[in-house]
Amino acid sequence: MEFIGEKTEAGVTRREFRLQVAGDTVPGCLWAPEGARGPRPLILLGHGGAQHKKVANLTAAAVAHARDLGYATLAIDAPGHGDRVSRDAAEKVRAAALAAGKAAQEGRRPPAGDQPKISRDPATVDKVVGEWKAALDAAQALDFVGRDQKIGYWGVSMGTRFGVPFVAAEPRITCAIFGLFGAFPGLEDHKDAAEKIRIPVLFVYQWDDELMKREHGLALFDAFGSAEKTMHINPGRHVEIPAFERDSWMAFWRRHLEPSAG
Amino acid sequence: MEFIGEKTEAGVTRREFRLQVAGDTVPGCLWAPEGARGPRPLILLGHGGAQHKKVANLTAAAVAHARDLGYATLAIDAPGHGDRVSRDAAEKVRAAALAAGKAAQEGRRPPAGDQPKISRDPATVDKVVGEWKAALDAAQALDFVGRDQKIGYWGVSMGTRFGVPFVAAEPRITCAIFGLFGAFPGLEDHKDAAEKIRIPVLFVYQWDDELMKREHGLALFDAFGSAEKTMHINPGRHVEIPAFERDSWMAFWRRHLEPSAG
Repeated sequence: MEFIGEKTEAGVTRREFRLQVAGDTVPGCLWAPEGARGPRPLILLGHGGAQHKKVANLTAAAVAHARDLGYATLAIDAPGHGDRVSRDAAEKVRAAALAAGKAAQEGRRPPAGDQPKISRDPATVDKVVGEWKAALDAAQALDFVGRDQKIGYWGVSMGTRFGVPFVAAEPRITCAIFGLFGAFPGLEDHKDAAEKIRIPVLFVYQWDDELMKREHGLALFDAFGSAEKTMHINPGRHVEIPAFERDSWMAFWRRHLEPSAG
Repeated sequence: MEFIGEKTEAGVTRREFRLQVAGDTVPGCLWAPEGARGPRPLILLGHGGAQHKKVANLTAAAVAHARDLGYATLAIDAPGHGDRVSRDAAEKVRAAALAAGKAAQEGRRPPAGDQPKISRDPATVDKVVGEWKAALDAAQALDFVGRDQKIGYWGVSMGTRFGVPFVAAEPRITCAIFGLFGAFPGLEDHKDAAEKIRIPVLFVYQWDDELMKREHGLALFDAFGSAEKTMHINPGRHVEIPAFERDSWMAFWRRHLEPSAG
């Protein structure tokens, strides 16, 4: 973990880093309260398709974790996203995702080239899982994170597509928030991974999602093997999760990640 | 509103009362912080079938509203419940509800006499709506409640069966929590009432409810006419709503009933 930049704003320090994993350079960010020393809970944030490690909603969540809970937060760019591609390439991915969303809203099937890049390739899933594990190893070696604290994973949409197999394969994760992604034909490995998960899960779903069918969301909720799992359904489209869900996420972290919890 | 008893415990005062409504005596309870003076938000609690106005879960909620939020809480016995029937009759209703639940769990259709007494009779619905309105009128005349404060309604199971038509007919209610009841054939008036509701709704549902089908719960959620509505689905049977949902209810009240909210 090579740190390449640090910025402190309103009591929260964001450290950018690069990490070598299996021949690739993975860019990432770590947030923590300014001057943090000693171990604390850690939350991993998996960004959505066409997004990146410090997109506005991830940054806002990381700042809230640090300020309101005193936790650390870790995010990395997924393959083909953020600082792993040129600005032009990132812009093309973003435009393609917007076009696919628009087509879906209008009831059209998006042209093949415009499909959001939620990979169906098992090799990409394995790559992401390996990168998350390496980033988690590196973060736990830091004094202000530590090895014995509870760890949560949050990721919706592509952050669920990659997060479910990661969480299924990673026993260090205590609890997870997923959403905006379903279980559907052609992606059986995803459902299989969900069935292996046993930790508490909060699953958020948009009832008028233009990219995901209702029954596929209910099917993924059913698939989770967890005894404690809760599904929050709200009206609105893919990117319209209501702001008050952020409060339920903070309550979920408090319930499961506090050193005194469970 | 004739007060017939008062008890203060750990900073919360519970006043029992009787109210004459259309020739019937309606027994009720009001909870508030000890020594409360001046207006404050009010939460109405509609109990479930075979329960009553001060059953353990309602009392616990009312105490939390007073202690943690400073709010007042109002509950009344529904027709055929609590102090409106003899102990023997109440015990028979409770036993019938248990038998119906047991039969449903075992996949049997409960014998006709054992069916839970969730009335399909529109006259009973009208009666309950009238009693709630009268109790709310009387509560708002009290100094420690007042007429200009925000008001929430909470009721699951039978508390939703009667609460949905009440809330649809009562413009003084600011927000509502419903659950454990669906929209199904033979009870079209219930769905019609849900469609008239426009206030924020939190709807809690048990995914393995032995008394309610999944699709009927989703249908009632769909029916609510509210722009802000959120459905929380958890595994487990009818009476197994997880304890953490109480936190989401408290957050919902804070969001909508605080004098500064909205």
